[in-house]
Amino acid sequence: MMDLTGLGRRVKAAAPAVARASTDQKNEAIGRAAEALVAATPEVLAANRADVAAGVEAGVSPTVLDRLRLDDRRVAGMAAGLHQVASLPDPVGEIADGWVRPNGLRVRRVRVPLGVVGVIYENRPNVTSDAAALCLKSGNAAFLRGSSGAIRSNVAIAAALRDGVAKAGLPADAVTLVEDASRESAREFMRLRGTIDVLVPRGGASLIAGILEHATVPFVIDGEGNCHVYVDESAELGMARDIVLNAKTQRPSVCNAAETLLVHRAVADRFLPAIRREMLEVELVGDEAARAIEPAIGVATEDDFAHEFLALKLAVAVVDDLDGAIAHIARYGSGHSEAIVTRDLPSAQRFTAEVDAAAVLVNASTRFVDGEELGFGAEIGISTQKLHCRGPMGLPQLTTLKYVIEGDGQVRT
Amino acid sequence: MMDLTGLGRRVKAAAPAVARASTDQKNEAIGRAAEALVAATPEVLAANRADVAAGVEAGVSPTVLDRLRLDDRRVAGMAAGLHQVASLPDPVGEIADGWVRPNGLRVRRVRVPLGVVGVIYENRPNVTSDAAALCLKSGNAAFLRGSSGAIRSNVAIAAALRDGVAKAGLPADAVTLVEDASRESAREFMRLRGTIDVLVPRGGASLIAGILEHATVPFVIDGEGNCHVYVDESAELGMARDIVLNAKTQRPSVCNAAETLLVHRAVADRFLPAIRREMLEVELVGDEAARAIEPAIGVATEDDFAHEFLALKLAVAVVDDLDGAIAHIARYGSGHSEAIVTRDLPSAQRFTAEVDAAAVLVNASTRFVDGEELGFGAEIGISTQKLHCRGPMGLPQLTTLKYVIEGDGQVRT
Repeated sequence: MMDLTGLGRRVKAAAPAVARASTDQKNEAIGRAAEALVAATPEVLAANRADVAAGVEAGVSPTVLDRLRLDDRRVAGMAAGLHQVASLPDPVGEIADGWVRPNGLRVRRVRVPLGVVGVIYENRPNVTSDAAALCLKSGNAAFLRGSSGAIRSNVAIAAALRDGVAKAGLPADAVTLVEDASRESAREFMRLRGTIDVLVPRGGASLIAGILEHATVPFVIDGEGNCHVYVDESAELGMARDIVLNAKTQRPSVCNAAETLLVHRAVADRFLPAIRREMLEVELVGDEAARAIEPAIGVATEDDFAHEFLALKLAVAVVDDLDGAIAHIARYGSGHSEAIVTRDLPSAQRFTAEVDAAAVLVNASTRFVDGEELGFGAEIGISTQKLHCRGPMGLPQLTTLKYVIEGDGQVRT
Repeated sequence: MMDLTGLGRRVKAAAPAVARASTDQKNEAIGRAAEALVAATPEVLAANRADVAAGVEAGVSPTVLDRLRLDDRRVAGMAAGLHQVASLPDPVGEIADGWVRPNGLRVRRVRVPLGVVGVIYENRPNVTSDAAALCLKSGNAAFLRGSSGAIRSNVAIAAALRDGVAKAGLPADAVTLVEDASRESAREFMRLRGTIDVLVPRGGASLIAGILEHATVPFVIDGEGNCHVYVDESAELGMARDIVLNAKTQRPSVCNAAETLLVHRAVADRFLPAIRREMLEVELVGDEAARAIEPAIGVATEDDFAHEFLALKLAVAVVDDLDGAIAHIARYGSGHSEAIVTRDLPSAQRFTAEVDAAAVLVNASTRFVDGEELGFGAEIGISTQKLHCRGPMGLPQLTTLKYVIEGDGQVRT
């Protein structure tokens, strides 16, 4: 096994130079990294072919192979992603607030980089360049640990990025990939306290469980999105249908897709048959009340309500009222994105106040809870925890605040 | 052992009522709790006498006994603390920011309570009322686990607080004390994921180590304060002397007291003898260069530089320049509060930019890094971590932000 401590020491040593770099320098480094990546396309694609061949041999699923597979267009897309991050505003140095104390002390809170950002991720090689760009732009060193299935691709991509960063005069170690993608290395990675300032895990339930059990470094969990759309008694049902359709089917594999439809009892017998007609490609499972109205709905298990499908499958439950919807979401929701469709102001107010989630939406699709759609540009993940940041984790969320206090010799009495 | 899961369920069930309570209701609850505490003074003092007697029997140190011991004046002080928290501004409902997207979606980020705040603390019974007040005012339920040495006092205090809260029409369970103060209960407490939304540990290194190893709930570490004062070549030495004296001796037992003095080589032979004369009651230990200048300075071990003394003892090191000071702090600092005394603008700028700590101070005592002194009012701890909040953890730091997104039927294309 590699010595992650030694590797970590090098990333940590590189971090102050990135933290001090000007916006121009960081943009230059990201731009050079993009150029180097494009120039290295042949090497990246050769490495990727080897990863894909190994995946085919290992019997990896077509979905996973599709995520893994690169071509010229995808590499160009990764480079474009780097340039896009370079174009985003730099959060570092922003003065969040400031004030003067009665004794004359001048206090300000300044946005500063976190230091070393660790990312553990799965088979998408594009995360290597996306995460590196976001870390660099926010003044952090990127410490990356991808999966073994994409290791050759990641090594080739990281080598190109490091070249570009070095050409811009920043330390190459500011982008460091762990080349040992064993389970042990993940374990060791999440225990590099004192080296990794924040860990962003991008993966499934077993990775999250491993982090909760073993991590000693601080982390921001990019967790499950068991998102609900509640169609209220007063909803405009055409709007409700469009929103449910969009939230479920526009891109079912992502965390902000809807997984459960809650329908007010008073409109269920009109709404459920309409939904059935509009979503013939979606498997519907539901509670007894829903099935009594629409026989094409199958039986929903407890598990169907408790977890995300990430597929063209939707759980349906009929609720007596707003309280029933709020209680269902409190029981099953994962704190990601929850929507109500309603024309009733008190219902909208209560739903947004009482539902505990990163985002609550009124009369809009859950699919909007995403860094791009909210206007931040790229994101490194979507936090489902309450500490540090909640929702899309973009550049400002990769920083922290530092108190700078200036005096003229003040002492405390 | 108690069933903490069941107890936790009750606290969690109480949290939404506190979250929804208006500022007036929360102030009423805190005010009633203060009244109930004063009314229960005889019971609280009787319980406290039993704790103190048990402590004396167990051979507990005089310092710890002093922290534990209550009298009429101290109980009145706790009640005054409750009223003071009630008078602070309510952070809940603040709109942090808001904007409109090109598609017409209206986005705002609203400050909301965390939910259930867990606090693990040691022998100071006043933390029971202080923490309860801060949690309630910020819309959270308080789940408190004090130490066995103060258990009788804490039970009596919590009973009074719960009475007051209930009289104001909020659920008594919004202030819940774990009455089992065993080591096992602490372990179980820190693993109540899904119940405790944030854990604030207030204790020593072994508690922090236990949390890093075993906690599955999110936490904010109130860690060590190994704080430095660096006296630059250009410092006004009279000001430097006052600041060092204040930072070390004004209250040596607290985390924002200075533990190490770093002196620029060019002024060390003038400054160190002056410091020796001014701090006769302080034990000085230092590196070779410091001892060569001032023979009254003893030998500093590696450990002396690495940890806080929390006592009238100061480590001294002579550094060649600003780089030496920054490197020393990077090596030994705990990320709490770091001060420079200088008249040189570039030195002040580099120190504040390059030293990585919750607070960096120029020409002021480290003792100012405290919620009261910075103008927040009371604090539940001082965070030495970078995630969520850094520095004093007052009411706003006991909240999180929620996205509220309003549309008119928008779907994603």
